[in-house]
Amino acid sequence: MTYHQKLDQAILTSNSLLCIGMDPDLSKIPMHLMNSEDPVFDFCRAVIEATKDTACAYKFNIAFFEVLGEKGWETLRALLPLLPAHAVRIADAKVGDIGNSSDKYAETFFDEFEFDCVTVAPYMGSDSVQPFIRREDKGIFLLGLTSNPGSADFQRLKLENGNFLYQEVADKAVSWNGLLNVGLVTGATHSEDLKELRDRVGDLPFLVPGIGAQGGDLGKTVRNAVNRHSRGALINVGRDILYASGEENFNRIVNQKAHWYQEQINHFRFTISV
Amino acid sequence: MTYHQKLDQAILTSNSLLCIGMDPDLSKIPMHLMNSEDPVFDFCRAVIEATKDTACAYKFNIAFFEVLGEKGWETLRALLPLLPAHAVRIADAKVGDIGNSSDKYAETFFDEFEFDCVTVAPYMGSDSVQPFIRREDKGIFLLGLTSNPGSADFQRLKLENGNFLYQEVADKAVSWNGLLNVGLVTGATHSEDLKELRDRVGDLPFLVPGIGAQGGDLGKTVRNAVNRHSRGALINVGRDILYASGEENFNRIVNQKAHWYQEQINHFRFTISV
Repeated sequence: MTYHQKLDQAILTSNSLLCIGMDPDLSKIPMHLMNSEDPVFDFCRAVIEATKDTACAYKFNIAFFEVLGEKGWETLRALLPLLPAHAVRIADAKVGDIGNSSDKYAETFFDEFEFDCVTVAPYMGSDSVQPFIRREDKGIFLLGLTSNPGSADFQRLKLENGNFLYQEVADKAVSWNGLLNVGLVTGATHSEDLKELRDRVGDLPFLVPGIGAQGGDLGKTVRNAVNRHSRGALINVGRDILYASGEENFNRIVNQKAHWYQEQINHFRFTISV
Repeated sequence: MTYHQKLDQAILTSNSLLCIGMDPDLSKIPMHLMNSEDPVFDFCRAVIEATKDTACAYKFNIAFFEVLGEKGWETLRALLPLLPAHAVRIADAKVGDIGNSSDKYAETFFDEFEFDCVTVAPYMGSDSVQPFIRREDKGIFLLGLTSNPGSADFQRLKLENGNFLYQEVADKAVSWNGLLNVGLVTGATHSEDLKELRDRVGDLPFLVPGIGAQGGDLGKTVRNAVNRHSRGALINVGRDILYASGEENFNRIVNQKAHWYQEQINHFRFTISV
């Protein structure tokens, strides 16, 4: 199965655009788990179990695993087999390096860890991206317009040709999409710009962070981000689902919250704004 | 000691601008080491031992350790204490993420692993950079003009205000340098542009990759990269020193090659081109 097919199938099988943002933070996970031998593993396992009927994808924030040292990589390795088979596995590592280093990162995330795709920073250009898009069965989400406040510093710089830098990145993403395995990270905190970007890049998949804790508007975001088939966008929610409860039965609350997001997103993607 | 002082002291103590690029590639290290229990550790230990009297800094290419999984992080952790005390420890991870993720990366590289500085990708802007420059004892090298062929794709885009994007990044680096802990990555493959960048940013430290295997001109690079005190630039050499020999006595050849670079660089920085 190609990456492109996996992405489409994941959305159809789960009837969901919800992507679970796996950002396991020891300072935020339910207290009772802190007594376990591997709190992060137990927490993530419970989250996966509680969300697997509602999500089409899981985005692992690599920073939160790296900070745990060797143990973090072990935990990551143990978690991936627990994901539902249909789900797209995203390594959110924002990599971007010269060719021979990018080769190593591709080997790490695609072969060592069997992720389906990674997030890639565009600044270093084509040879930093190529090692991730050479194979039909693996793909990338290129940082386009990110959800954080600092995104304006460079991404919204106006170029001599009239484009903003993020639009130039979007155009490059389209030009690199020969194997149908390139997508864009487009933050929900810029829901107005999502529409313009969607028109610009056709059916290119979007990975959309910024919903929940970061404050993006869900309805506008979903309607503006989906493609003409009401698909083609992974709506990422992390903290707002993961830390919905600190109680022993947190997994029930996580499940309810994930269901709520799945349904809300489906509502918005299948109805027209009035 | 502040980061700024450490950088200056490292150059003065070693009488060198040479930075050793630690890119340990299993497919390139001397054959006889492959029988050891941890070939990467043994190789890197030998390289550190053979170069410690010639180098002011060591740049660890994190991709080459990550690809080894948990083992790679163990190896990295075991290597850092072997570095000479004066040497600046650079984590070349090209990180760049939203605030709370950057916090985690800062914790990983500065506290878990005790690196002095990291390389940071600018695309996501100020809040992705801030967590790395809050402390006087730690610093960054921000990607400015990188040494790879793809650097032209975005870094050389002309902005409406007449600047190239990399010049805008350089200006931001200067504006973020309140604690004297911000530097720029400026590739040796653009030696003509180094002069212009040096004039633009005053004494800001440069980390200069691209010498050796990547083909940058050593003389021009050194003369154009150093500041008005003939310092302020770390000239990184990786493959050309690390893989100078595949023989059992490779460490002698590595030592000779590192000495050669140290002396050549000193020659160029202390003499004027005729």
